[in-house]
Amino acid sequence: MKRKIGILTGGGDCPGLNAVIRGVVKSAIIGRGWEVVGIEDGFDGLLYDRCPRPLGLEDVRGILPRGGTILGTSNRGNPFSYPIEVNGKTVLTDVSDRVVVRVKDLGIDAIVAVGGDGSLKIALELMKRGVPVVGVPKTIDNDLMETDVTFGYNTALETATDALDKLHSTAESHHRIMIMEVMGRYAGWIALESGISGGADVILIPEIPFELKTVCNAIEGRRRRGSKFSIVVAAEGAFPRGGTRVVQKKADETMAIERLGGIGSFVARELTSCLDMDIRVTVLGHLQRGGSPSTFDRCLGSRFGIGAVELIERERYGEMICLKGRAIRSVPIEKAVRKLKLVDPRGQMVTAAKELGINVGRE
Amino acid sequence: MKRKIGILTGGGDCPGLNAVIRGVVKSAIIGRGWEVVGIEDGFDGLLYDRCPRPLGLEDVRGILPRGGTILGTSNRGNPFSYPIEVNGKTVLTDVSDRVVVRVKDLGIDAIVAVGGDGSLKIALELMKRGVPVVGVPKTIDNDLMETDVTFGYNTALETATDALDKLHSTAESHHRIMIMEVMGRYAGWIALESGISGGADVILIPEIPFELKTVCNAIEGRRRRGSKFSIVVAAEGAFPRGGTRVVQKKADETMAIERLGGIGSFVARELTSCLDMDIRVTVLGHLQRGGSPSTFDRCLGSRFGIGAVELIERERYGEMICLKGRAIRSVPIEKAVRKLKLVDPRGQMVTAAKELGINVGRE
Amino acid sequence: MKRKIGILTGGGDCPGLNAVIRGVVKSAIIGRGWEVVGIEDGFDGLLYDRCPRPLGLEDVRGILPRGGTILGTSNRGNPFSYPIEVNGKTVLTDVSDRVVVRVKDLGIDAIVAVGGDGSLKIALELMKRGVPVVGVPKTIDNDLMETDVTFGYNTALETATDALDKLHSTAESHHRIMIMEVMGRYAGWIALESGISGGADVILIPEIPFELKTVCNAIEGRRRRGSKFSIVVAAEGAFPRGGTRVVQKKADETMAIERLGGIGSFVARELTSCLDMDIRVTVLGHLQRGGSPSTFDRCLGSRFGIGAVELIERERYGEMICLKGRAIRSVPIEKAVRKLKLVDPRGQMVTAAKELGINVGRE
Amino acid sequence: MKRKIGILTGGGDCPGLNAVIRGVVKSAIIGRGWEVVGIEDGFDGLLYDRCPRPLGLEDVRGILPRGGTILGTSNRGNPFSYPIEVNGKTVLTDVSDRVVVRVKDLGIDAIVAVGGDGSLKIALELMKRGVPVVGVPKTIDNDLMETDVTFGYNTALETATDALDKLHSTAESHHRIMIMEVMGRYAGWIALESGISGGADVILIPEIPFELKTVCNAIEGRRRRGSKFSIVVAAEGAFPRGGTRVVQKKADETMAIERLGGIGSFVARELTSCLDMDIRVTVLGHLQRGGSPSTFDRCLGSRFGIGAVELIERERYGEMICLKGRAIRSVPIEKAVRKLKLVDPRGQMVTAAKELGINVGRE
Repeated sequence: MKRKIGILTGGGDCPGLNAVIRGVVKSAIIGRGWEVVGIEDGFDGLLYDRCPRPLGLEDVRGILPRGGTILGTSNRGNPFSYPIEVNGKTVLTDVSDRVVVRVKDLGIDAIVAVGGDGSLKIALELMKRGVPVVGVPKTIDNDLMETDVTFGYNTALETATDALDKLHSTAESHHRIMIMEVMGRYAGWIALESGISGGADVILIPEIPFELKTVCNAIEGRRRRGSKFSIVVAAEGAFPRGGTRVVQKKADETMAIERLGGIGSFVARELTSCLDMDIRVTVLGHLQRGGSPSTFDRCLGSRFGIGAVELIERERYGEMICLKGRAIRSVPIEKAVRKLKLVDPRGQMVTAAKELGINVGRE
Repeated sequence: MKRKIGILTGGGDCPGLNAVIRGVVKSAIIGRGWEVVGIEDGFDGLLYDRCPRPLGLEDVRGILPRGGTILGTSNRGNPFSYPIEVNGKTVLTDVSDRVVVRVKDLGIDAIVAVGGDGSLKIALELMKRGVPVVGVPKTIDNDLMETDVTFGYNTALETATDALDKLHSTAESHHRIMIMEVMGRYAGWIALESGISGGADVILIPEIPFELKTVCNAIEGRRRRGSKFSIVVAAEGAFPRGGTRVVQKKADETMAIERLGGIGSFVARELTSCLDMDIRVTVLGHLQRGGSPSTFDRCLGSRFGIGAVELIERERYGEMICLKGRAIRSVPIEKAVRKLKLVDPRGQMVTAAKELGINVGRE
Repeated sequence: MKRKIGILTGGGDCPGLNAVIRGVVKSAIIGRGWEVVGIEDGFDGLLYDRCPRPLGLEDVRGILPRGGTILGTSNRGNPFSYPIEVNGKTVLTDVSDRVVVRVKDLGIDAIVAVGGDGSLKIALELMKRGVPVVGVPKTIDNDLMETDVTFGYNTALETATDALDKLHSTAESHHRIMIMEVMGRYAGWIALESGISGGADVILIPEIPFELKTVCNAIEGRRRRGSKFSIVVAAEGAFPRGGTRVVQKKADETMAIERLGGIGSFVARELTSCLDMDIRVTVLGHLQRGGSPSTFDRCLGSRFGIGAVELIERERYGEMICLKGRAIRSVPIEKAVRKLKLVDPRGQMVTAAKELGINVGRE
Repeated sequence: MKRKIGILTGGGDCPGLNAVIRGVVKSAIIGRGWEVVGIEDGFDGLLYDRCPRPLGLEDVRGILPRGGTILGTSNRGNPFSYPIEVNGKTVLTDVSDRVVVRVKDLGIDAIVAVGGDGSLKIALELMKRGVPVVGVPKTIDNDLMETDVTFGYNTALETATDALDKLHSTAESHHRIMIMEVMGRYAGWIALESGISGGADVILIPEIPFELKTVCNAIEGRRRRGSKFSIVVAAEGAFPRGGTRVVQKKADETMAIERLGGIGSFVARELTSCLDMDIRVTVLGHLQRGGSPSTFDRCLGSRFGIGAVELIERERYGEMICLKGRAIRSVPIEKAVRKLKLVDPRGQMVTAAKELGINVGRE
């Protein structure tokens, strides 16, 4: 059966989005002869009579190695709570009806929604109002349930690990403490895994509120044993035991400027009180979202795109594509967005870090 | 209980070996206070009264980002069939008794054998003669059963995908067919996954003997549709339907020179007979084994090393560490070496390639 | 004065070509309001009534980091000796008149010819027939006179040095001799500079015919002093003293397959006769031409493009843009193509290699 | 004549330092049979009876591709103004006599001082007190006179350009202004050259105090012409016309934390007042100093090291090695440290940026 499908990318930028788009377009057109349209700027593209862009094989040529998304994305676009200006004031309004109507008017049979937690929840709500949707999980932080991992995470890890390699030379040459702040508001996956791969000495994650004294002791211990430098990786959402998160808002809702006074600087200030060492902070920031996707993310993104088309073919609406081991599977979106996938403080990864002699903020 | 354990790396070089060694050393010493010795040049290091090298925390400092293995490896060293010179002639001799005795003499309680198919089989045999062994799977080709993936494979994929990115510019600028030969004597995983990630147009793997006519048609079809260039990725063990493998010996048993007349050149010659296009061959060769391990391989290698020490602690000898999903598990070595993990011609990965419009040598 | 200028890229692919094109288009349009057309596939694009492609700011968006050339290139296209089929036979014919007429018909005021030795000579001849031309030097091998260096060379060096880093791990782990063959038919610059930067032990270049005995001794000497591996870099045009070049044709005129039996394999075969060591050969080939240009090449390419437009503005036809120190200058094309810039066997670079203990094929 | 020479690295970390050290050691030992000692932690290593480390060929093995300096560096160590604690207070004291005596006591015939502006001035003063010194220029910012360029700068440019490539994807996908702050307190070379190579839209450098209105107009203009994003590169020492520098202290004298409120954040705040766009800031910071040196810096560093040894051989004390075009030369240190090499606002590089349509803070 010939179909017309739409694809949109929502939420923060993520390496591999173009691989998903290309996967959807190629598998829909080459094998099935379907029609594909690209909805621009996330769910925003379904409002205000904006016209989706027809996507042919030509349009996805050469995009596989490119970061970002050719469809653009949006941070505003929740149609259930959309900022509408009324008498000079911004009022959050439910404009989802317009979306439902617009999809029908455009003759779109089904939508592939590529997004994180937030975007998938919107997709689920639209589904309940009759819009056939399938989901593709996207999160740089790796905090989505029901999938072993998503695209973008591996590229972000490569960027973070490469940065740690770079900081090592300066730390060693100058006998310094280098603190690197990485993404991860609620989940410490990037900090934990890049810290292990980049040879960090201390890793601070939101799931394990840290004790400053312990961190000081760990660094002091290293110095006593002859290592004149230390590398600390801190997830942006890490916070001291008994304290509160420095970053409360979404990274994409607040200006990066505010984040500059984030956890990295906080830890630096606190460490100066207990250590007589030179300290430097690096905030990796948006570099983690950019760049050409790694081979892992290109392959996974492509497979996710193909899988989404297969879900539509089998009319498994409301499902989300996922990775289990080496296999592509699917689960109800509902199960995936119920809660975030956090690091288990007693799980294998944290234990591995400890076995390697890394201080994770405690003991 | 305090233990003295040995670690050796056998078979071909592989990015991540040093991460494993470091993982073993750190987890054995820091948490357990054990003693670790490094056996040099694979099983060779247990012959001829060679002394293993004591490995302390100092010895593994800074090796995480480094390719290769600080312990060296050997291609000869099968103690069950060892080349001994007798009267000027080389005779393959069973010298495994010496190994068994040597391990006892050295007071080694258990050995971590890091290796592929071949090395693990040797480890298993030694096990049967009373040497306590645990295995860590190593294969660049990803052809080992019972583990989702091993370290080294991801780095090799990055190298191959990066090379494909590079060949794309020349292919496009010169309207050429670029053929790239990658590793994979029996299993086509590197060709298949790097081909998908690098945007190849044709992928040839040992598991699907190819039809030249089909390949020609695919390239011709692309030209008709306006694409003046094509990229072909061929696993070194690929061969034409009805033909035989060009590479029969192990890559490490034969000189690379002989391999230069491998499958890449063969396909180039054959394609010139049916296509009037400029063709170039690149043999990626040893570049795939080298370089700093990717973040994925550093983390996985470290976890495998830790896991091996835990296996020894629990006296699970004869077992091999493996990855299932995101978790480290173990299986009997016996199960892992029974046969090679080949690409399933009807499996998800091949189907994905086809969905993306890639020709895989058939249809 | 408003002008209409054409740009073409000739000869082999080279990272930075797109930077030149972008530099020409931006500086011609933004500051001067000129018109730019892109002539496709080198001088071929001026034959057979092919229409150049108008190039606006939109057309050069995003091409700066991309390898290759958006205009394509050609290996055939010498209009003074063009392969024309006459009665089924290919006859080399002077069709330069057509080019001269075509340029006039198209209303092109001046042409920016980006190319190496060959393309610049053609440009010079067209100049003599009344076509206003300015040149931009392009050579991956760095063998063009009158410019300190050209774009593309630095990127090729990065690729070669990175490959040497990779081969080091395998060489060390396996106690092997690794031979890497790099570009450089007549000039050994890539071999020499990447060899110095990549820590090679032996460097073979066309300018210094090598003595095999000397090379053997150097490797033997290393082994005696405890280094169980050696890295050899050989320019494709290197040859033994008293011998002849293995590669006689242009790399772009002959199939890569033939080159596989090149100098790397030759040296490997010869070394096996005097050394009892494992040897492997890697032919870097087209990987050197590909990939995203390095920052050096992007900046230099951009400046060359701008410089070419300034030459046209000042009507300095027949001149070629060049780099002297940190400054962009120009010289008569005639001076640049008179002879190749070869490595001086007594110059600073060869002396530097020797000071570092590298064997360069002699002594 | 056999000599004993010392080498020290002063000031900030810089990729290529190890290449210099290796070049000095290899050329002094292999060809000349000299003795080399490594003075640790800059000039600090000549105080308090610290013993230099003997450097043999073994000690420099494998350091060529490594960032940082195996000798360590120091930010305190000016022996003419050394922080000495007297009665609990830190007093800057001239302790240069100790250095002069120490050098004599150690039997060091000459010292290779690798450093920037500051370290070279110290070297010059020691020279006047009878310590034979030759200089090797080191500056990541490229602000040293009398040499075309120094090692480290190219690697820093690669890091900055790569970061700009990464920010491009996010900027495009999110329709954002991305501001990247790079090194350059007094000289804007890194900002200018990486901005050109990374396709920036605005470049702010200390040499051209910027007008905010102009910058706003440039970005607005882009938006009107359809480009929904803009990339701004700002040297840390850039400042608004009529304003003052935000960064007054040396990057290495002040904590990075303070710098987080640097020029990037300042520009972001100011731009929000005139533009209704999403803005993000990235402070590249220490990442620019780290990492494996590029091929250019490895080769240049090696040649500088060799050149320094040759200067000592010819007893050209008080001279500094430099690069002119492709040749290694030398100049009196005195000439090199007289003033900083700043970007000429009317020079070729700024003009090139303007020709490419980049706003440089004015017009």
